[in-house]
Amino acid sequence: MFTVYGMSDSGNCYKVRLALEQLGLPYRWVEVDSSKGETRTPAFLAMNPNGKVPTLGLEGGGHLPESNAILHYLAEGTPLLPGDRLGRARALQWMFFEQYSHEPYIAVARFILRYLPRDTPRRAELPRLQERGRQALAVMEQHLAAQPFFAGPAYSIADIALFAYTHCAAEGGFDLAAYPAVNAWIDRVRGQPRFVALPG
Amino acid sequence: MFTVYGMSDSGNCYKVRLALEQLGLPYRWVEVDSSKGETRTPAFLAMNPNGKVPTLGLEGGGHLPESNAILHYLAEGTPLLPGDRLGRARALQWMFFEQYSHEPYIAVARFILRYLPRDTPRRAELPRLQERGRQALAVMEQHLAAQPFFAGPAYSIADIALFAYTHCAAEGGFDLAAYPAVNAWIDRVRGQPRFVALPG
Repeated sequence: MFTVYGMSDSGNCYKVRLALEQLGLPYRWVEVDSSKGETRTPAFLAMNPNGKVPTLGLEGGGHLPESNAILHYLAEGTPLLPGDRLGRARALQWMFFEQYSHEPYIAVARFILRYLPRDTPRRAELPRLQERGRQALAVMEQHLAAQPFFAGPAYSIADIALFAYTHCAAEGGFDLAAYPAVNAWIDRVRGQPRFVALPG
Repeated sequence: MFTVYGMSDSGNCYKVRLALEQLGLPYRWVEVDSSKGETRTPAFLAMNPNGKVPTLGLEGGGHLPESNAILHYLAEGTPLLPGDRLGRARALQWMFFEQYSHEPYIAVARFILRYLPRDTPRRAELPRLQERGRQALAVMEQHLAAQPFFAGPAYSIADIALFAYTHCAAEGGFDLAAYPAVNAWIDRVRGQPRFVALPG
């Protein structure tokens, strides 16, 4: 059985939960609170020297960090990863887009507004984060205006990766009403078999 | 034949050149200068709506952006991608580490010092970028003290991805002498068949 070391309200950790649920794979969830230093303990750093959740405990021993690498590992050989070479590359294209051009803006804006005190000096970062986040949403909107999912005609781990922080982008100050194709895609993702919501 | 739309002295673009050379694949290189707005033209945005280099022109038509997705696409079925499921996941683990925990600090510090005017206000970002960059180098050092390459016993696209901005980290103000295992790995990468250096 897999073990997920994760924070329940982290979008990166939610990706792993959603994939495990949709693939029908049994797992154990171990809550790890990075805000309490629990990702910097010697025991945690022995699992992931980069000190981040999620980290997956593998069935045969060993640990795998990085949410999108975990998604790819779980999805290989299943309908959640396209069966053709270009489709697999398209899934990775959008997953790298998510980690480089989307998460650092949309998830970080949410983090500042949801978890930090109202008087945090980090609120000064919000205009830049929201500008870059809107650019990412515009790229998604353009894609989804022409295609139902990200990596091809079918739902895949690219959709899971991008759904995690997009569906709750309002918590980072983003107005999703401006992106009708993104909203329709959010509804399509919610309608997938065995869908589970982000806890909390 | 593949077409690479890239900037020759970008590490992200160099990854693609190095993989193509090491795989012995013929390609055409089209220089695109993002500092002159050439990634924001309608023609370029039609290839990559996210407006970034590198973007790969595929043999059968169509375009693939995101340097690490391009590496994966090129390496599938070759010795540059591990043949087992966990090895492939390990390669992706380090490639996502590179785009999230390494490139935004080490490459951006190099960009500020190498390309922006000496009086740019962005120099104020350097202490934080260099602190985070040193954290990434420390994670690499710990891994390489025990293993020769990133995704397993053999050289792979994970090494190509991390080599691109690590070997020139001194240009971002990093002192690589503090990371002996990283230095030894840089020499191992330079010793691989058909290695080519970052131009310029």
